[in-house]
Amino acid sequence: MVPHLLTALKGPLQDLEQRILDATPQIERWFRLEWQEHTPAFYCSVDLRNAAFKLAPVDTSLFPVGFNHLSAPMLPLAQQAAMAAIEKYCPDARNLLLIPDLSRINGCYGQNILRLAALLRQTGLNVRFGSFDPTITAPTPIDVADGQALMLEPLVRNGRRLGLRDFDPCTIVLNDDLSDGLPDILQDVYEQTLLPPLHAGWAVRRRSQHLAAYLDVAKKFGKAFDIDPWLINPVFARCGPVDLRESADRARLTSAVETVLKQMRSKYREYGVADTPYAVIKPEAGADGRGMVMVRDVARLPALIDQLAAGGRHRDLVVQEGVPTIETMEGGTAEPIVYMIDRYVIGGYYRVNAERGRDENLIAPGLRFVPLPFATSCNMPDCSAGPEHAQNRFYAYGVVARLAMLASAIELERTDPDQSLYG
Amino acid sequence: MVPHLLTALKGPLQDLEQRILDATPQIERWFRLEWQEHTPAFYCSVDLRNAAFKLAPVDTSLFPVGFNHLSAPMLPLAQQAAMAAIEKYCPDARNLLLIPDLSRINGCYGQNILRLAALLRQTGLNVRFGSFDPTITAPTPIDVADGQALMLEPLVRNGRRLGLRDFDPCTIVLNDDLSDGLPDILQDVYEQTLLPPLHAGWAVRRRSQHLAAYLDVAKKFGKAFDIDPWLINPVFARCGPVDLRESADRARLTSAVETVLKQMRSKYREYGVADTPYAVIKPEAGADGRGMVMVRDVARLPALIDQLAAGGRHRDLVVQEGVPTIETMEGGTAEPIVYMIDRYVIGGYYRVNAERGRDENLIAPGLRFVPLPFATSCNMPDCSAGPEHAQNRFYAYGVVARLAMLASAIELERTDPDQSLYG
Repeated sequence: MVPHLLTALKGPLQDLEQRILDATPQIERWFRLEWQEHTPAFYCSVDLRNAAFKLAPVDTSLFPVGFNHLSAPMLPLAQQAAMAAIEKYCPDARNLLLIPDLSRINGCYGQNILRLAALLRQTGLNVRFGSFDPTITAPTPIDVADGQALMLEPLVRNGRRLGLRDFDPCTIVLNDDLSDGLPDILQDVYEQTLLPPLHAGWAVRRRSQHLAAYLDVAKKFGKAFDIDPWLINPVFARCGPVDLRESADRARLTSAVETVLKQMRSKYREYGVADTPYAVIKPEAGADGRGMVMVRDVARLPALIDQLAAGGRHRDLVVQEGVPTIETMEGGTAEPIVYMIDRYVIGGYYRVNAERGRDENLIAPGLRFVPLPFATSCNMPDCSAGPEHAQNRFYAYGVVARLAMLASAIELERTDPDQSLYG
Repeated sequence: MVPHLLTALKGPLQDLEQRILDATPQIERWFRLEWQEHTPAFYCSVDLRNAAFKLAPVDTSLFPVGFNHLSAPMLPLAQQAAMAAIEKYCPDARNLLLIPDLSRINGCYGQNILRLAALLRQTGLNVRFGSFDPTITAPTPIDVADGQALMLEPLVRNGRRLGLRDFDPCTIVLNDDLSDGLPDILQDVYEQTLLPPLHAGWAVRRRSQHLAAYLDVAKKFGKAFDIDPWLINPVFARCGPVDLRESADRARLTSAVETVLKQMRSKYREYGVADTPYAVIKPEAGADGRGMVMVRDVARLPALIDQLAAGGRHRDLVVQEGVPTIETMEGGTAEPIVYMIDRYVIGGYYRVNAERGRDENLIAPGLRFVPLPFATSCNMPDCSAGPEHAQNRFYAYGVVARLAMLASAIELERTDPDQSLYG
């Protein structure tokens, strides 16, 4: 179920990873039964951090970018998974409309879109690119890096259906995270399948709802496999909407940070972790990496809040446990990102930054991407015990990433504006 | 949909292969629609031959062996496909019973069984091994090559259910081709899913029924994509049960050979093929490679029939067009075998024999197996035109192999003893 990939971390498996590996058949069946109850989002990527003492997701993107960073051997897995997904939503699909994020279409992100389109085409679909941006009023050729190009066409609404001129899609795949709001033209699309649904966009989605769903999943998984949920779950505290110039609101944020740090200190003591805990203040909405603040020392919090307020005083915030990474690659600090389509792990790569520390955000100048290679020196996924087991480390990563995927499925059920669908 | 594998043949794509590659999205959709009408067998392997002027399946096994010859990077694809299959038959499956061919369990075939069991375990199943052989009356440890072992247990019938002592499976996977007949204990299993069904076994299956179904598929595919069906279909003629010492029966066999050779000569002329056509006399039942006779010259047929009769005068025979292979690998003649689980191509390898010619059966002393490697020098499946396109050769192989898989699905519908299932 999980590609056998080599991770950067070469040492023997930690206790948690070993327990996950040992329980493989039970875990796979557990997921199989969960997917009978919950429908995974069309696609998803999960940023993970392996801190040795814990292995946890730190961000779950429902509009994954970076398909171009997956190695070529991963494509068939991605295609197979996409095929399974498409068959579920629209078995006789012929046309698929892909809506990219126009603001990032040149360069690296554009390559991601081309890769995504290529694999969707390989599943037997005509793929065209649409935009709701008002500047796109006619088919517009867009130059993407390396001499590649794509044709972006204006969306056309034909009564209840959404498409392009002369192009009526069965399925519409969004790769714009809708941080800037829900375009009218995308609303009330009922006859076609919009993947993921509109309320997965950051115009509606709230990070704490995902974290709450993930906590529930981590508890259920922990109970089933006798694993302390904290070992796979970052503590969080919702702060809510604040005016960072108001002292009551600043106190509320401080209190959320202290709640997180207090729980972390208690767990660090329980597991004998010598590190200094740190919390991360994140916006409730918006892709990870933007507007995040790390808090190592509460005494420094007032200054950090002032810094944050300089970028806008009205915020909606959540505080999350910071999970350090022990992984390094080519001299840089590294964190894996795991990709899924439907309920399948299809691959992953490392975000590497030589200029950042193990407890910092790697999305910063100096960032590089390194695809995870297939393991080839081992013929069986459950090869002999001992340090060689490190080759199966990625299996544990795939399990934790799928827990986050499952959490996002539950999150989308809970936040669906048409609750009647879920009784 | 098809792993991007490197084939032995390095030259530019032939016209047929190029046309298949160019029509990829349409072909994938064609298959998607066909799989709505027909259910693929659980698994399947197809021997192909690329003769440059044609690319055709020469044998379709519904009890594939050789999973151990697939390279390790193929396992995740196999697991993903097995997961999709298991979910279809028994979504809450916990236990799976695998029935290997006891007569071959030591050595290479045993490794195949261990590999198959490993990938089924990875889909979240408890896998145990059962045998209907009367010599297996208690759990019996079996030594497989390389120090690996498996425990073979006697099958137990509990009323309507089939299992092992203390093991009640939801799904039963057969990897014994039942050449020696249908064991009573496997009959009338209705509550559990037997994969593939009993009538896929050589005790019931007839090669000409598969070839007839394949011809229908080849014609339909050929019509959809403007391809002469002969380019993907080996001509065949049913001979039927014969007594090889009876002159009337010998004449019937000779006539079948002449029918095949005549059609081949006409097609060879049409396409300007300079080779000398040859026909292959095959038994109607039984795995390919056993009891096959190549006929290059009808004048030699009486002697060949005498030779064949020496191994048993009563035969049930079919005559098939011989397809030469132009592929070579490491100095040997090579033919690809493509593996599928459910409707997914999961990989392949080459059968290589340095002691055999391009128009001979490679299953003979000198046989070796070479896994197909993933293509890595090309980032996109439909990379730039020119000779590099040869990297996509395996795509065409996967298409033709899936046509054979589809034919076997139709064959199993037509030969199902419980026709009512198919209206």
